[in-house]
Amino acid sequence: MPRHPAFDPADLPESNATSYPAPYREENLRRHNRRLGQHAGLRNFGVNITRIAPGGQSSHRHAHTRQDEFVYVLQGEAVLQTNDGEQILGPGMCAGFPAGTGEAHRFLNRGDSDVLLLVMGDRSSGDEVIYPDIDMHGRLQPDGTFRFFRKDGTPY
Amino acid sequence: MPRHPAFDPADLPESNATSYPAPYREENLRRHNRRLGQHAGLRNFGVNITRIAPGGQSSHRHAHTRQDEFVYVLQGEAVLQTNDGEQILGPGMCAGFPAGTGEAHRFLNRGDSDVLLLVMGDRSSGDEVIYPDIDMHGRLQPDGTFRFFRKDGTPY
Repeated sequence: MPRHPAFDPADLPESNATSYPAPYREENLRRHNRRLGQHAGLRNFGVNITRIAPGGQSSHRHAHTRQDEFVYVLQGEAVLQTNDGEQILGPGMCAGFPAGTGEAHRFLNRGDSDVLLLVMGDRSSGDEVIYPDIDMHGRLQPDGTFRFFRKDGTPY
Repeated sequence: MPRHPAFDPADLPESNATSYPAPYREENLRRHNRRLGQHAGLRNFGVNITRIAPGGQSSHRHAHTRQDEFVYVLQGEAVLQTNDGEQILGPGMCAGFPAGTGEAHRFLNRGDSDVLLLVMGDRSSGDEVIYPDIDMHGRLQPDGTFRFFRKDGTPY
């Protein structure tokens, strides 16, 4: 049994909560996050284990304007979608998404068993999130949450 | 074969370079870093795979004043030393080190085979590094490197 400041991620609760508005919420409910960084008390970046159940996605395909993101595949066969198409990433493969490149990405699970990803991202202020495939745009609020708007600027 | 923005960490070069001054360099030469975040073009945080060969350490035991750190054990049995003593962490276990807590830590490999750690840390400016066990103190420079001083303030 690991003790503080170490821990077993499996001891943390999972949540499939999403702040996406309808009609974009449903597709996100088959990914379940464990907040490792938050549990450890980190403030400068987040570290999640994201479990994508069969048929699920990590998020809608998106790119951050100011926040870097990095993903390491822990288990399963993850389909990575980017601007350039698709590829399959197995355990031990990884991908980085620097802020501001417009490289929009998401991970899908088209298999029969869970995909586990270790997902890292910083908390740079003023971040916006571009969703090329759907009528949604995210803006980071001063309280650290994201608010979602249509592409014409009207809020959900 | 993964393609951009994905990659296989095993394709990156390893380095055991250390900026530690003598006489504290030697103990650090059995840890070998692959710079995943740098390879991906991230600027806001670093992601390394650190391979600790038998008998090696990840670093001298240290605590950051402003930078958060997080470690996920990928392979092997890592000995985590903190202010509180030692514990052994196997694959899938993790530990977080929020900035400013003074929780000084390092990982050791006392086994016969390699330990692999996934190590994340941000790049907050003004960081200092406290080394409770040795006559050394680190200060982050504006160019992103650390300079090392004795505890009386004289530079190495």
